[in-house]
Amino acid sequence: MSSIKNIGVLTSGGDSPGMNAAIRAVVRASIYHNLKVTGILRGYEGLIQADFIPMDGQSVANIIQRGGTILKTARCDAFRTKEGRELAHKNLVESDIDALVVIGGDGTFTGADLFSSEFDFPIIGLPGTIDNDLAGTDFTIGYDTAINTVVNAVDKIRDTAESHDRLFIVEVMGRDSGLIALRSGIGVGAEAIMIPEAKMGVDDLICRLETGRKDKASKIIIVAEGDEAGGAYVVGEALKEKFPKSDIRISVLGHIQRGGKPSCMDRVLASRFGVAAVEGLLAGKTDVMVGQINREIVFTPFSQSIKHIDAKAISPTWLRLVEILSL
Amino acid sequence: MSSIKNIGVLTSGGDSPGMNAAIRAVVRASIYHNLKVTGILRGYEGLIQADFIPMDGQSVANIIQRGGTILKTARCDAFRTKEGRELAHKNLVESDIDALVVIGGDGTFTGADLFSSEFDFPIIGLPGTIDNDLAGTDFTIGYDTAINTVVNAVDKIRDTAESHDRLFIVEVMGRDSGLIALRSGIGVGAEAIMIPEAKMGVDDLICRLETGRKDKASKIIIVAEGDEAGGAYVVGEALKEKFPKSDIRISVLGHIQRGGKPSCMDRVLASRFGVAAVEGLLAGKTDVMVGQINREIVFTPFSQSIKHIDAKAISPTWLRLVEILSL
Amino acid sequence: MSSIKNIGVLTSGGDSPGMNAAIRAVVRASIYHNLKVTGILRGYEGLIQADFIPMDGQSVANIIQRGGTILKTARCDAFRTKEGRELAHKNLVESDIDALVVIGGDGTFTGADLFSSEFDFPIIGLPGTIDNDLAGTDFTIGYDTAINTVVNAVDKIRDTAESHDRLFIVEVMGRDSGLIALRSGIGVGAEAIMIPEAKMGVDDLICRLETGRKDKASKIIIVAEGDEAGGAYVVGEALKEKFPKSDIRISVLGHIQRGGKPSCMDRVLASRFGVAAVEGLLAGKTDVMVGQINREIVFTPFSQSIKHIDAKAISPTWLRLVEILSL
Amino acid sequence: MSSIKNIGVLTSGGDSPGMNAAIRAVVRASIYHNLKVTGILRGYEGLIQADFIPMDGQSVANIIQRGGTILKTARCDAFRTKEGRELAHKNLVESDIDALVVIGGDGTFTGADLFSSEFDFPIIGLPGTIDNDLAGTDFTIGYDTAINTVVNAVDKIRDTAESHDRLFIVEVMGRDSGLIALRSGIGVGAEAIMIPEAKMGVDDLICRLETGRKDKASKIIIVAEGDEAGGAYVVGEALKEKFPKSDIRISVLGHIQRGGKPSCMDRVLASRFGVAAVEGLLAGKTDVMVGQINREIVFTPFSQSIKHIDAKAISPTWLRLVEILSL
Repeated sequence: MSSIKNIGVLTSGGDSPGMNAAIRAVVRASIYHNLKVTGILRGYEGLIQADFIPMDGQSVANIIQRGGTILKTARCDAFRTKEGRELAHKNLVESDIDALVVIGGDGTFTGADLFSSEFDFPIIGLPGTIDNDLAGTDFTIGYDTAINTVVNAVDKIRDTAESHDRLFIVEVMGRDSGLIALRSGIGVGAEAIMIPEAKMGVDDLICRLETGRKDKASKIIIVAEGDEAGGAYVVGEALKEKFPKSDIRISVLGHIQRGGKPSCMDRVLASRFGVAAVEGLLAGKTDVMVGQINREIVFTPFSQSIKHIDAKAISPTWLRLVEILSL
Repeated sequence: MSSIKNIGVLTSGGDSPGMNAAIRAVVRASIYHNLKVTGILRGYEGLIQADFIPMDGQSVANIIQRGGTILKTARCDAFRTKEGRELAHKNLVESDIDALVVIGGDGTFTGADLFSSEFDFPIIGLPGTIDNDLAGTDFTIGYDTAINTVVNAVDKIRDTAESHDRLFIVEVMGRDSGLIALRSGIGVGAEAIMIPEAKMGVDDLICRLETGRKDKASKIIIVAEGDEAGGAYVVGEALKEKFPKSDIRISVLGHIQRGGKPSCMDRVLASRFGVAAVEGLLAGKTDVMVGQINREIVFTPFSQSIKHIDAKAISPTWLRLVEILSL
Repeated sequence: MSSIKNIGVLTSGGDSPGMNAAIRAVVRASIYHNLKVTGILRGYEGLIQADFIPMDGQSVANIIQRGGTILKTARCDAFRTKEGRELAHKNLVESDIDALVVIGGDGTFTGADLFSSEFDFPIIGLPGTIDNDLAGTDFTIGYDTAINTVVNAVDKIRDTAESHDRLFIVEVMGRDSGLIALRSGIGVGAEAIMIPEAKMGVDDLICRLETGRKDKASKIIIVAEGDEAGGAYVVGEALKEKFPKSDIRISVLGHIQRGGKPSCMDRVLASRFGVAAVEGLLAGKTDVMVGQINREIVFTPFSQSIKHIDAKAISPTWLRLVEILSL
Repeated sequence: MSSIKNIGVLTSGGDSPGMNAAIRAVVRASIYHNLKVTGILRGYEGLIQADFIPMDGQSVANIIQRGGTILKTARCDAFRTKEGRELAHKNLVESDIDALVVIGGDGTFTGADLFSSEFDFPIIGLPGTIDNDLAGTDFTIGYDTAINTVVNAVDKIRDTAESHDRLFIVEVMGRDSGLIALRSGIGVGAEAIMIPEAKMGVDDLICRLETGRKDKASKIIIVAEGDEAGGAYVVGEALKEKFPKSDIRISVLGHIQRGGKPSCMDRVLASRFGVAAVEGLLAGKTDVMVGQINREIVFTPFSQSIKHIDAKAISPTWLRLVEILSL
C-alpha cells in the first residue's frame, strides 16, 4: 500500500488550454482515493516560497471550461539552483506533502527529473503545452485547442484574402516544432506550409506559387515561427520583391494561440491524465510523464519525454498532403 | 496500372461536418493523379437519376470550412431495389465513371457493399457520421465537431445551472451508441452519463445523486437519445417525482449537433481520408472503408465496418472517470 | 450630498449574459465613489435570509466575460408577502445597507417598486433579461447575446437543411414577446417568422410557402415560444399534414439561449448601466430603472418599465423585411 | 414613377463582415420591386472593365452568414481619373444599368459622389467598414462583428495574462479612429485605452499603472493603431524601460478583425440598409448614404457622410468609464 497521503499539484511554464481540467482531475482523483491535495501557486516559484493552498472538490468546481491556470504559472530561476531546490524540498516536507503532480512542458520536466532524483521525491508529470513536441504522448494538453484557434483565425483571414484576391503569410507558434503549423495548415487549406523540420526555402515556395493553379487568386501560406527561412516578415519581403504586383499581407497570430476555452478533446485528455497521474503515484510510479499513445495511457521517464519530437519523420506525408490539396 | 479514369463522389445519409473537406480531398487527389472526377448529387438518389456534375479544383475552393455537403444528401429507397441499382450502374457506365467514393455511415456502406458485389464496381467508403459508431476507424468525420458543439452548448447551460442551483438533464444524439454522450459528458464535467451500452437505470442515478457531494448545488446529467431509460424527458419525470423540491430542467440539443464548421481534427481527418480513398482505388482496393487506427490509414471491408461499435468495451473506464471527476 | 454609504447589489429572475459585467460595474463604481458595496446572494431570497457578502474590486475580477451571475439568482415567494419584505428591510438596516441595485426583469422590478414605496428605500433597477421586453430602454442586458446564440445555432441547422433540402421549424424563447424571434429571424435569413404580436396563422404560413420561390429547397421558419399558433410542434404537425412529401424537422433551441459569454454590446451596456445606477442613487434617484434610449442613459419609473413592450408597433416593418429578403 | 429598371451593386474598399448580407438584401429588394439587378465584380475596377454578372434570388442564397464579399473588392486608381469614370459610365449605359448601390467606406463614397455629379447617375451608398467612422449612421456594417472579434481574442489573451501575472499591450485596428478600441476596450475590461482622439500619452499611462490597485497582477492595455503614442510596440518599449521587472508582452491583432461570420446585429443592419437603398433609389434619392440614427433609417449626402467621425466628442465619457471599471 502506498504511503502517499498528500499530493501537491502545480502548473509551470507557458499556460495551455486544459491545464484547469487537469488540475480538477488531480484534485478529484485525490479525493476519490482519500488523499489530501494541496495547490502550489506559480509553479516552482510557489514551491520555493511555500505558497500552498489546501484544495477540495469545490476548489475546482466550474473550471473545466476555462483557459489558463487557476494555480498560475511563472518562470523560476531559483529552482535551477541547488539551494532553491533544497528550500523547495524543505517546504514540502514541512507541509507534509509527499508527492507532486507537475503540469507543463520540457522545462518543467527537466526540473522535476532533477528534483525527483536529488530528493527521492515521487513526481509525475502531465504534458501541458500547445506545441505537442514531447515524446511519450500522441497529444499534449492544449494542442488541439491551439490548432482550432489557428484554424478559426485563418478562416477569418481567408474571408479577406478571397475578397481581395490576396496572398496572406500567417505565422503560427512553434519555435522548435512545426506541429502546430502542419496540422492547422491542412485544416485551413493552406497553399504551402513552412516548418523548421522541412527544408522548403523561399525559392521552393516561389517555385510552388509560380506553378500552381492559375485561376486561384487568393492564397494562404502558414509559417512556423521557428522556420529557418526567418518567419513571416522575411518570407513576405522575399515574395513582395519577386511578385511586386501581388497584394501580399502578413499576419502574426501571436498570443491568442495560448488561451481560450479548451476543446472537448483537450478536456478529456486532461481529465484522463489527471486521474492517471494520481493513480500512478499510488501505484509507486515516479519520475515519469503520463501520456496517451494509441489511445492507451502510458508512462514515460522524464528523461525520455523531454527529447523534442520534431516533425521530420511525419512531415513528408503531411507536406505531400498539402501539395495535393492545394491543386 | 489502374484502368480507373473517372471517379464519382457522393455523400449519403445524415450530413456531418467535414464532408465538404472530404469531397475537396477526393477531387484534388483525383486531379493530382490526372483523373477526371464527377460529383453525384443527393447520394444514391443522384446515381439513379444521373444527376452528375463534372468537378475541377475550383469546384471545391473555399469549402473546407463549411458544414453540410455541397453535393447534398438524401434517403433513397430505390437504391434498395435491384432495379434501382441496375439503373444506377447503367448511368455510371454511360457517363464513363469507373469508380466511386461514397461518404456516409453504415446505411451508405450497406448499399455500397451490395452494389460493389453485384456489378464488380470499384467503391471505397469514407466514414462520415457524427456518431463514431463504425468499426475500422478510431474516429469518423464529424464526431469531433459534434462533441465540441455539445460541449459549447452545455457550457452555456451550465451558466444557468450554476446561477439557479439547478439540475439539468441534457439529451444528446446517439440512437444506438453512447459515444457522443460519453466523451462530451467528460468534457462538460457531467455528474452522470446515461448511455444505451451501460445499464445505469434511473434508480442508480437517484442513488448517485443522493450520495454525491452535498455542497454541489448545480448538476448536469447527459443522456444519450437511445438510452434504455427512455430519454431526457422520462428521466426528468422520475427525478422530479423523487426530488419534488429540486429545480430540474430538460434540454434536448437536437439538430445543432449535425452542423457547423468542422473542427481542425475533422478537417485533417477528412483530408487524409479523401486522398487515401483515391489512392486506394488506384491501388486496386475496393469494397472497403478508409479509416484511421492508431494514427495510421487502414482499409476495412464494408461488411466489417458496418458492425456497430458500441461503447460497451470502453464504457466502464469512462464511466469510472465520470464518477471520480464529479466528486 | 448623498447619505448613501453602502450599496447592496443583487440579481433576480432568469439569468442573462452580462449580469456579471453589471455586478462588476456596480461594485467598481461604488469603490470609485468611496462607498461600501455588499453582494446579496440569490436575489430577494438572500435579502430575506441575510445572505450578504462584502465585495471589493478583486471580488469582481475576471468576471466580465462570464455568463450567468456570480451572485446567483432564485425565485422567492416570501418576498411577495408583507412579512417577507419586512424581514428583508430589517436585514438591510441591521447590515447598514442603505440603497439597492437590483438586476433583473419585470418580476424583479415589481418587487422593487413595492419594497421601495413601503419602506422608502432607495432602489435602482438594471434591465437584465434576454427578452428585451421592458419599456424604458432600447436594449436589455443579454438580448444581443441571446440573438447571436440563436443565429449561431440556426446557422448550424441551416447546414443540414441545405444538405437535405429540408424545412426546419425552430422555436426560440419569448413567452410574451416576439423580439428575439424577429431580430434573430432576420439574422438567419428565415423564410417566415411567427410571433405572438402578429397574427400570421398556420394558414398564412402555408400560403407563403406555396407561393415562394420554387427553386428554394431548404427553408427555416422561426417560431416564438409564445406564438398563438401553439409553438413549433403544433406548426410542424400542420405542415406535415399539408406537405406530406416534404422533409420537415423541428428544433426547440431551449436553455442554451440564456447562457454563454456576453457579446461586446452586452458587456458595454451592462458596464454603463452599472455605473449609471450607482451615480443615480448618489444623485437621489430611486424607484427607477436605468436604460439606454437613442444611446443616452435614461431613468424610467419602475411602474412604467414593467409595461411589457410588445413588438406590435415594430413588427410590420420587420415582417415586411422578412418577406422581401426571402425572395 | 421611377424609371429605374436595372440596379448595379458593388462592394469597394476593405471588406467588412455583413457585406454579403447587404448584397443579398439589395438583390432581393430589387426582385421584390420587379427590377433587374446586376453584380459588379471587384468594385470600381469591375465597373471600368465591365465585369458584370446578372443576379437572381438564388445568387445570394446561403451567403448571409459569410464574411468577406462574394462580389470581391479592390483598389482602383483608374476610377480616380476622368477617363476611368467615363469608361465606367459607358459600360453602365451599354449594359442598361441605370442606378448603383455601392457598399464601402469613405473612399468609396468620395468616388461615388464625384461619379454621381459628373454623369447625373443615381447612386446610393451603404456604410460597409469595420471602423464605424462615418457620419450619418450610428453604426456601420461590420463594426459590431469586429469589436466582438477583438473581445473574443483578448479574452484568450486574458487567460494567459491572468496565469502569468502579465501586462499585455494589444493593438487593434483604427488608423484614424479610436472607436474600435474604445468599445472593445470596455468589453474586455481593459485597464487603459489609448486612442488618437484622446491625448493620453505614455507618461499618463505610466502614472495610471503606478496608482492603480496593487493586488491586480495582470493588466490589458488597448492601443488603437493610429494612436499618437506610436502603436503597441512603442508603448511597450516605454513600459519595459519604466518597469524592467514586469512581464510585458505585445500583441497586434491584425487582419483577423476584418473577417468572420457577421454578428446578428450586422446582419440585421445590412439587411435593412440594402432594402432601404433600393427603395431610396426608387423614391428618387441619389448621392446619399443610407444610415441608421436612433434606430431610424436616414439618408445623408455623401459629402457629409465622409467627414470622419472621430471619438473626440464621446471619448471623455468612455474613458471615464474605463477608469472607474478598472478599480
